[in-house]
Amino acid sequence: MAAATVSNMRVILKRYVTGLLSEDDIEAATVEAPPLDVPTGSKGVVVKNLYVSCDPYMRNRMTRHELPSYIPDFVPGEVLENFGVMKVISSGHLDFKAGDLVWGMTGWEEYTVINNPESLFKINHPELPLSYYTGILGMPGLTAYAGFFDVPKPKKGQVVGQLAKITGCYVIGSAGYDEKSKFGFDDAFNYKKEQDLEAALRRCFPEGIDIYYENVGGKMLDAVLPNMSLGGRIVACGMISQYNLEQPEGVRNLYYIVTKRLRMEGFHVFDYYDRYYRFEEEMAGYLKEEKVSYVEDVVEGLDTAPAALIRLFTGCSIGKQLVAVARE
Amino acid sequence: MAAATVSNMRVILKRYVTGLLSEDDIEAATVEAPPLDVPTGSKGVVVKNLYVSCDPYMRNRMTRHELPSYIPDFVPGEVLENFGVMKVISSGHLDFKAGDLVWGMTGWEEYTVINNPESLFKINHPELPLSYYTGILGMPGLTAYAGFFDVPKPKKGQVVGQLAKITGCYVIGSAGYDEKSKFGFDDAFNYKKEQDLEAALRRCFPEGIDIYYENVGGKMLDAVLPNMSLGGRIVACGMISQYNLEQPEGVRNLYYIVTKRLRMEGFHVFDYYDRYYRFEEEMAGYLKEEKVSYVEDVVEGLDTAPAALIRLFTGCSIGKQLVAVARE
Repeated sequence: MAAATVSNMRVILKRYVTGLLSEDDIEAATVEAPPLDVPTGSKGVVVKNLYVSCDPYMRNRMTRHELPSYIPDFVPGEVLENFGVMKVISSGHLDFKAGDLVWGMTGWEEYTVINNPESLFKINHPELPLSYYTGILGMPGLTAYAGFFDVPKPKKGQVVGQLAKITGCYVIGSAGYDEKSKFGFDDAFNYKKEQDLEAALRRCFPEGIDIYYENVGGKMLDAVLPNMSLGGRIVACGMISQYNLEQPEGVRNLYYIVTKRLRMEGFHVFDYYDRYYRFEEEMAGYLKEEKVSYVEDVVEGLDTAPAALIRLFTGCSIGKQLVAVARE
Repeated sequence: MAAATVSNMRVILKRYVTGLLSEDDIEAATVEAPPLDVPTGSKGVVVKNLYVSCDPYMRNRMTRHELPSYIPDFVPGEVLENFGVMKVISSGHLDFKAGDLVWGMTGWEEYTVINNPESLFKINHPELPLSYYTGILGMPGLTAYAGFFDVPKPKKGQVVGQLAKITGCYVIGSAGYDEKSKFGFDDAFNYKKEQDLEAALRRCFPEGIDIYYENVGGKMLDAVLPNMSLGGRIVACGMISQYNLEQPEGVRNLYYIVTKRLRMEGFHVFDYYDRYYRFEEEMAGYLKEEKVSYVEDVVEGLDTAPAALIRLFTGCSIGKQLVAVARE
C-alpha cells in the first residue's frame, strides 16, 4: 500500500553566517515528508513537531568552526535543529508509542525521524502548557536550576532570578529590554540602554556582586568584574552579545579575577540531564503554586521561525521565544 | 645616652607610575635611620634588612587606584615595601629577640621598624641560603605550592613546574626568556619570541592543556583558552604582561570558558600563610635532596634596586630577582 504524500515545511540554513544573522541566511521551504511509519526493524520514532524553541546558542552552530565545538555545526542546505515539544506518531522503540508527548532535540520542520529516541524526555505534566517544555520545563529551565543549585547561586534570567528569590537572595535582573521587573526581582536594568554599565551595577550592588550568571559577555562582563565581591562567583552559561560578531570583543578587566579571587566557571546543561525528572517535578510545583511566573513570546508557523530566531539578537523579544509548529 | 646617628638608604616612589616603570619613577636616597632600639612599651621590632625581593605585583601598587585593591597603593615620597629577609636588632615583642632571622613584609631600606611583628615568619632552615626566603622558601614558593596542591595542579613558573614534575605531570614551561628547560620540564618555550603562541601551545599540547598556571595574561591567555582541554582549570595568580599598560589588553577568547566548561580561579597566597611552616619543611627537604633546583638573580645594594625591579618587566632577568641589602 503506497502512503499518501505528506508535505513537510522545514527551515534550512542557506549558508554559513557572518555577522548579524539575517533572513538571507535561513529560509523556510516545503518538501515531501519522510515516511510517517518507522521502517520495520528500526528502533527510531517519527514525531510530529508541536513547538520548537529559539535559543541563542543556535547562532554559534551557524558559523563554521575549524575545530569541533561542543555540538556540531549546522550544514548549509540542511534543516536546523533544536529543542522542541513533539508527539510520537510512530515508534519502533519499546519505550515509546504513538501518541506519547516528548521533548528533546528535533528538526525545525513538521515531521522528524529521530533515530536515537533514548535522548528524548517524556512529558509528565501535560496539564501545564506543552510549550513550557521548550523553556521553563525544558533545557533553559534545567540550565537555570542546575546553574543555581549546583554551581553557585546566580542572578540573571527570568527563571534563575526567581529561583534565587525563592532562596532569599537579593536579585537584580539585567536584560536587553525594560520589563524584567515583572519577575519580582529587587531591581532590574536594561543593559542595552545604560550609558555606563559599571555605574549601573555599582548603584544596584553597593556592596558588590556575589554571584553573576553570565549570558551576555563582552562589555557586560567588563562592567561586572570590577563590581564583584571578594571571592565572588561567575557562572558562565553563554555570551549572547558576542555570537554575531566576526571577532569577539576584548574583555579588559580580567585582572580582577586575581585581585578579588573570583571563580569563573563554564557551565553546560548537557552535564545535568540525569537530574531532569527531579527538576521537572520541582519546577512544575513552583508553577502550579505560582511561586514562579513565566512569559512566552510565541509565533505561529515555521514560516515565521526565521524572523523569530533573528529577534533573539535584535532584542525585540520579551519572554521565551518559540515557534508553534502545530497546535494540538 | 644619645644614639649615634646611623644612615638609612631607602628606595622611594617618586610619583604614581603610568606605562612602563622607569628609573624616573623610583629612586634610592639616604636619610637618617630610625632609632635602632624599640621605644619602651612598644611591642614592635627593629630589623636590619638583608635581602629584599623584586616581585611583579609591586608595579600594581605604584598605580593609584580609585577603589581599594587587595593591598594598599604605595604613596609618592614613601619607601617601597615588599617581602624581605631580615635580622632582628631590637625587640619589644616576647616572640622575638635580637639576632633572630625572620622573613616578611619590610621596607626597601637598610633598617625598618615593624610594629606588627606577628606578621613575620621565623626562618627554621638557616643552613640553606637566606636569600631563598625571598623566593622558593618565601611568598613565591608558597604561591607555587598552594596553587599546585590546593587549587588544581598547575604548570608555569620554575617552582610550580617542578612540583608538577614531582607529582608526575607532563609539564611545559613558558617564560619571557629561553632558559626554562633547565628546570627539567618536558618542554619549554619563550612566550615573547613565539610568532604564533596558539600554534606553539597546540604543538606542545596536542591533547589540550589540563591546567594552566596564569601569570602572564593578555595575549598569552588568549592563546591558551582555545588550547585548554574540556573541563580544564586555570589558576590565575598574576598577569605580568598587563601591569605596565595604561589600558589592559582585551582578551577575546573567553567564550571557550563556556564551550569547554573551564574553571578560571583567582588565587592569593595571602589565604595560605597558615600553612607556611608545613610548606617550609617540605620545600627545604626537596632542596636538600636536590629534587627541586632554584636559580636566583641577585644584585648588590639598594642603589641597584630600581634597575633590578624594572628588569622584571623588560624581561632580562632569569631566575628570581632580588636585592642583597646587607651580606651577613
